Amino acid sequence: MNTTLDNLKINLFGESHGPLIGITVAGLASGIKLDLKLINDMLERRKPKGKISTQRQESDQFKIVSGYFNGYTTGTPLTIIIENKAQQSKDYSKIKDILRPSHADFTAYEKYQGFQDYRGGGHFSGRLTAPIVALGAIATQILNSHNIKIATQIKSIKNIQNISFINQQNLETKIDSLNKLNFPVLDQEIKNKMHDLILATAKNHDSVGGTLESIIIGLDPGYGEPFFNSIESKLSHLIFSIPGVKGIEFGLGFAITNYYGSEINDSFWIEHNSIKTKTNNNGGLNGGISNGMPILLTTAVKPTPSIFKEQNTVNYKTKEETKFTIEGRHDPAIIHRAAVVQSSMIAIGILDTIISREGYLWMVKK
Amino acid sequence: MNTTLDNLKINLFGESHGPLIGITVAGLASGIKLDLKLINDMLERRKPKGKISTQRQESDQFKIVSGYFNGYTTGTPLTIIIENKAQQSKDYSKIKDILRPSHADFTAYEKYQGFQDYRGGGHFSGRLTAPIVALGAIATQILNSHNIKIATQIKSIKNIQNISFINQQNLETKIDSLNKLNFPVLDQEIKNKMHDLILATAKNHDSVGGTLESIIIGLDPGYGEPFFNSIESKLSHLIFSIPGVKGIEFGLGFAITNYYGSEINDSFWIEHNSIKTKTNNNGGLNGGISNGMPILLTTAVKPTPSIFKEQNTVNYKTKEETKFTIEGRHDPAIIHRAAVVQSSMIAIGILDTIISREGYLWMVKK
Amino acid sequence: MNTTLDNLKINLFGESHGPLIGITVAGLASGIKLDLKLINDMLERRKPKGKISTQRQESDQFKIVSGYFNGYTTGTPLTIIIENKAQQSKDYSKIKDILRPSHADFTAYEKYQGFQDYRGGGHFSGRLTAPIVALGAIATQILNSHNIKIATQIKSIKNIQNISFINQQNLETKIDSLNKLNFPVLDQEIKNKMHDLILATAKNHDSVGGTLESIIIGLDPGYGEPFFNSIESKLSHLIFSIPGVKGIEFGLGFAITNYYGSEINDSFWIEHNSIKTKTNNNGGLNGGISNGMPILLTTAVKPTPSIFKEQNTVNYKTKEETKFTIEGRHDPAIIHRAAVVQSSMIAIGILDTIISREGYLWMVKK
Amino acid sequence: MNTTLDNLKINLFGESHGPLIGITVAGLASGIKLDLKLINDMLERRKPKGKISTQRQESDQFKIVSGYFNGYTTGTPLTIIIENKAQQSKDYSKIKDILRPSHADFTAYEKYQGFQDYRGGGHFSGRLTAPIVALGAIATQILNSHNIKIATQIKSIKNIQNISFINQQNLETKIDSLNKLNFPVLDQEIKNKMHDLILATAKNHDSVGGTLESIIIGLDPGYGEPFFNSIESKLSHLIFSIPGVKGIEFGLGFAITNYYGSEINDSFWIEHNSIKTKTNNNGGLNGGISNGMPILLTTAVKPTPSIFKEQNTVNYKTKEETKFTIEGRHDPAIIHRAAVVQSSMIAIGILDTIISREGYLWMVKK
Repeated sequence: MNTTLDNLKINLFGESHGPLIGITVAGLASGIKLDLKLINDMLERRKPKGKISTQRQESDQFKIVSGYFNGYTTGTPLTIIIENKAQQSKDYSKIKDILRPSHADFTAYEKYQGFQDYRGGGHFSGRLTAPIVALGAIATQILNSHNIKIATQIKSIKNIQNISFINQQNLETKIDSLNKLNFPVLDQEIKNKMHDLILATAKNHDSVGGTLESIIIGLDPGYGEPFFNSIESKLSHLIFSIPGVKGIEFGLGFAITNYYGSEINDSFWIEHNSIKTKTNNNGGLNGGISNGMPILLTTAVKPTPSIFKEQNTVNYKTKEETKFTIEGRHDPAIIHRAAVVQSSMIAIGILDTIISREGYLWMVKK
Repeated sequence: MNTTLDNLKINLFGESHGPLIGITVAGLASGIKLDLKLINDMLERRKPKGKISTQRQESDQFKIVSGYFNGYTTGTPLTIIIENKAQQSKDYSKIKDILRPSHADFTAYEKYQGFQDYRGGGHFSGRLTAPIVALGAIATQILNSHNIKIATQIKSIKNIQNISFINQQNLETKIDSLNKLNFPVLDQEIKNKMHDLILATAKNHDSVGGTLESIIIGLDPGYGEPFFNSIESKLSHLIFSIPGVKGIEFGLGFAITNYYGSEINDSFWIEHNSIKTKTNNNGGLNGGISNGMPILLTTAVKPTPSIFKEQNTVNYKTKEETKFTIEGRHDPAIIHRAAVVQSSMIAIGILDTIISREGYLWMVKK
Repeated sequence: MNTTLDNLKINLFGESHGPLIGITVAGLASGIKLDLKLINDMLERRKPKGKISTQRQESDQFKIVSGYFNGYTTGTPLTIIIENKAQQSKDYSKIKDILRPSHADFTAYEKYQGFQDYRGGGHFSGRLTAPIVALGAIATQILNSHNIKIATQIKSIKNIQNISFINQQNLETKIDSLNKLNFPVLDQEIKNKMHDLILATAKNHDSVGGTLESIIIGLDPGYGEPFFNSIESKLSHLIFSIPGVKGIEFGLGFAITNYYGSEINDSFWIEHNSIKTKTNNNGGLNGGISNGMPILLTTAVKPTPSIFKEQNTVNYKTKEETKFTIEGRHDPAIIHRAAVVQSSMIAIGILDTIISREGYLWMVKK
Repeated sequence: MNTTLDNLKINLFGESHGPLIGITVAGLASGIKLDLKLINDMLERRKPKGKISTQRQESDQFKIVSGYFNGYTTGTPLTIIIENKAQQSKDYSKIKDILRPSHADFTAYEKYQGFQDYRGGGHFSGRLTAPIVALGAIATQILNSHNIKIATQIKSIKNIQNISFINQQNLETKIDSLNKLNFPVLDQEIKNKMHDLILATAKNHDSVGGTLESIIIGLDPGYGEPFFNSIESKLSHLIFSIPGVKGIEFGLGFAITNYYGSEINDSFWIEHNSIKTKTNNNGGLNGGISNGMPILLTTAVKPTPSIFKEQNTVNYKTKEETKFTIEGRHDPAIIHRAAVVQSSMIAIGILDTIISREGYLWMVKK
């Protein structure tokens, strides 16, 4: 089922090899002048590029077919569609019963009882994240107009660690820089290492995952809910819709359990007449509600399940064990492409949270 | 805002020092013979006990005041209330402006603009988890009647590690044993070490957190949704409502990023004529949908923010920095008490997921 | 299932002969100084009085047990309970299988499969409207503080017609007067006739229904939605939850079909520099959205099904036809008591509609 | 805002003069073999025909662009689009500020603050009902496969009355016959009279409304909810989304207030070993729940506001009063075209109600 937010009612639709994919959202205010360039830029960052990504090249040209008129949102449901153009015409029916390990082939079979569109992963395809990014770009521009900014960087790929946002200065500059990068790592040396590791992995017909760290700055204190709809609840709900995400943590996250309370409580102090915390181990959130510090979260993205090595599996129909090797065009890593998807989901979630408090006219307030 | 599920419409209400706390749920089927003993047992496991917990002793006697008749649910909204009896009568108004670090005092002030019930944490109090457990017990008995079982164990407290469920045998026996324990650790030696650590921490006026590992067995393949309402989405949404949870991971979780795809893909094979995976690194879930393997998840619970050491903070009203020491009755660790809350949230979430597919009559089907 | 609104998440609970009835609502802002007198006054208008109503006398003393502190809402879920005190101890189990015609006995049996609380109608009892009125009074005071006012009058009882609000002047004065009346009819002569008709009907062991006309003034243009959540949709959704309502119409309603378009189109004109319509045949709504004119709606309330005449019916268990006469305490008419319930539902619905646009802080804005 | 149902999450999108209109629905089961002919047939019945309708001729060719594969639903969100082809290229910007009486021009201006797509009514256009009918046809075929049937007839146009379904025999035959008619009136003489009246009205540059009576047979007892989600609530919520509907009543509706309780209570009796009511004044519903008798409802559809007579109105921008005459292509009556829209909304609502009880697998159960 779709549409789990409080204010933005979203349906995401389409399949990898259908005519199009798209998203429709009810609840956007009228009068938002859409920044089409930002939508294009964010879609561009999601696109596969170079040898570290799949060779399927989709133009990802989006069309806004409803809720948009003369450059502005109309306030009625807005629909974005992206046509599928580079589907390969191979005969999927031959391999549809061979369950790809760690993919959703088996669970789709069980849930949809054989009626799923199995071509290229169908509705489970990573392609479905493109419309999410298109909507995320709209949410991002609305937040930006209120000085709320979001970025996501690759925090690690296997053993290669990037520098965390925690305790860093000049966050806004870093966010702006990151949002221009297709491979969101600011340190050139680390970036090269990561890039090389993905290339080597691809050559070895294998895949690799990593962690993604996101930051949100500019959100005032007081947003969110204590129970059932904390900011953590809402963001994790959305982010676990990104294919491959296996974990999420806020602030210090799991590492916080290595400390005594006295070591990691975030003391309050007064900075420029405002109440701030000296440390930010809680990642900007207390009791599910924003405290005005940067919101920090990190996710784990598993290695892409599509690898070009031979694997053991099962034929769903015959119930026989078999060996097979995945063919086609696949990503040795999606971590760099997933970053902008994660930022998009966060933008959508934070926007929805703010609307609950401020009303939908806030979206066009200056 | 409350009530985020698809079928069970829940409102959780009450404050730590109000007359009562409670929960009301619409969407339960009629004709469920309630196992009051299970509700009592689960509430008992949540209760503070001994020197490793707060000294506030609440009887936590629950009353079902609607939706329940002659021993069975009626199908109309069911309400459970628990009266507050052991509130201390101290004057909270004196300390209400002193923001306790890493608590929700500041964010509550910002969100509710001074109108929050500040006594004992108000609506943010851990006491609110008692009604959740009462409802969780009802969900648990419904799931149990369909041979779906859930347990949560302490996986770690600081550096003391317990044995993970991953790759273990005899899971059902272990689940049954764990569900009888107030301190859910099966290995006696590990348990003693953890217990001693908490005691030592308490003596040192400090607090400690840990990780909680949950397991769900007996859920058939095919439950959940691909986008926006994956099982991971729904469970994380609920679990991040438990005070103190800072992270959640499924299957191998964050550790999965240490491996190549070829190392952690879960190969399919045939076991007793059913399709299973040889490993369970994905924790029973692919594409957001159950695959029939045990569902495994681990959470991070931060050290209780209430410590008896002096801390630096701020007076909200005067905006002056100050030092203070928390008084009253507090837990040096809540990890052991949180286990049954986590199991309860999971039971509620899994039940809601099943109802979407099977309809609400499933709750009383044999 | 409960809770169908967009912003206010409501659970209504309890049974006629259970320990209590109540309502819990999440989504109210913090800082609303509750006007307890208004809650009492509106509950008082719902209470049975004199010989034209049931002789069951409940004190209907409400307690706010959560979400309320020091005279103000806290912003966390607010719960109101009303204890049942005047239940009669007669043995309902003897008559529970005798289906009362036009009551919900049969449908409750079918839906809840025998597990419903059958005593006094259980959850279907008109008593459940008392908590709705309590919440409605809170919504009413919030709307009043923004100069939005609501009233409901008896428009007809059988052939006795009252004067419609349509085309009347001095609406605010009339609204204020009506909201002080237990029997909401302004014209004393008509009132007496209606009262006499009910008395005569009661003497004849029969019952009578009528129509209720509601008016909402002060709502600015621009509230509501074109599809699926028009103001008509939201209000009718709520109002059809009032036991006995069989129809609803807006503006001229069904009578509008007697005219040509040219006769009933509402022409626009300029009045005091604002755009108004000369007539108000559409009842203040175009395309599901308020146009600034008074919103007018009329409902049909059927004769109370509980009559003291002998009726033909069936025993649910034995499937035998039988004759029986209802005993106990019943209303020969509920139309006068239903008026304040209708106003309450409208207040809740209009408030929810406004919050979608203005945000929840609007509730405490001056 | 869209999407108000419990199980089917619907977004309706598009504007009269945009590139396309469409609907997307999440929550349909997989494995429903779609009856495309039924979709076409129902769309055909909605289409304008002859001189009694607008001369705008749209082919209304629908495409299912997601959630549909090899002739069956896949279980993932299903999207239907219909391209707009016959938009007239006239310059709407000249007339956009002239508010058409009883249309949504003014309220759209107020709600969307000038950003609405004003061409041809934009999102408020009756064209938006075409995708509703397409989805309604899918719901209809699902219900039909469980022997639940729905039809809608014209009950009256001005003073010309048709025969009501109440107390009629051979309902199934009548339903089947009605569902083949573009002008749903079984009696040829009445039909001719109605047709002639519309023609005469059109010649006179005027418009006319009427009432629509719907019937649902085959729904077992026990579906619906007592409060907030009664069948009346759900159906009225949906039906008030149909442009022009000003009233709805169930069973005897408003006429029930003309009787004493003893005259209109529906006595139970035993017919073929089942419990039935002798009369059906409550229209198949008690306490919001189906009682197994035919569900009957009637709506009032106002005269089309677009008439070709000169009208008084106002220029929104200049705030000046003016006279104008509507141009373009318009319906002198929409009542005959609205019938299938009403049946569609009912089918969607009843399906959603059933899923809550039976689960989504019911949709493909035989």
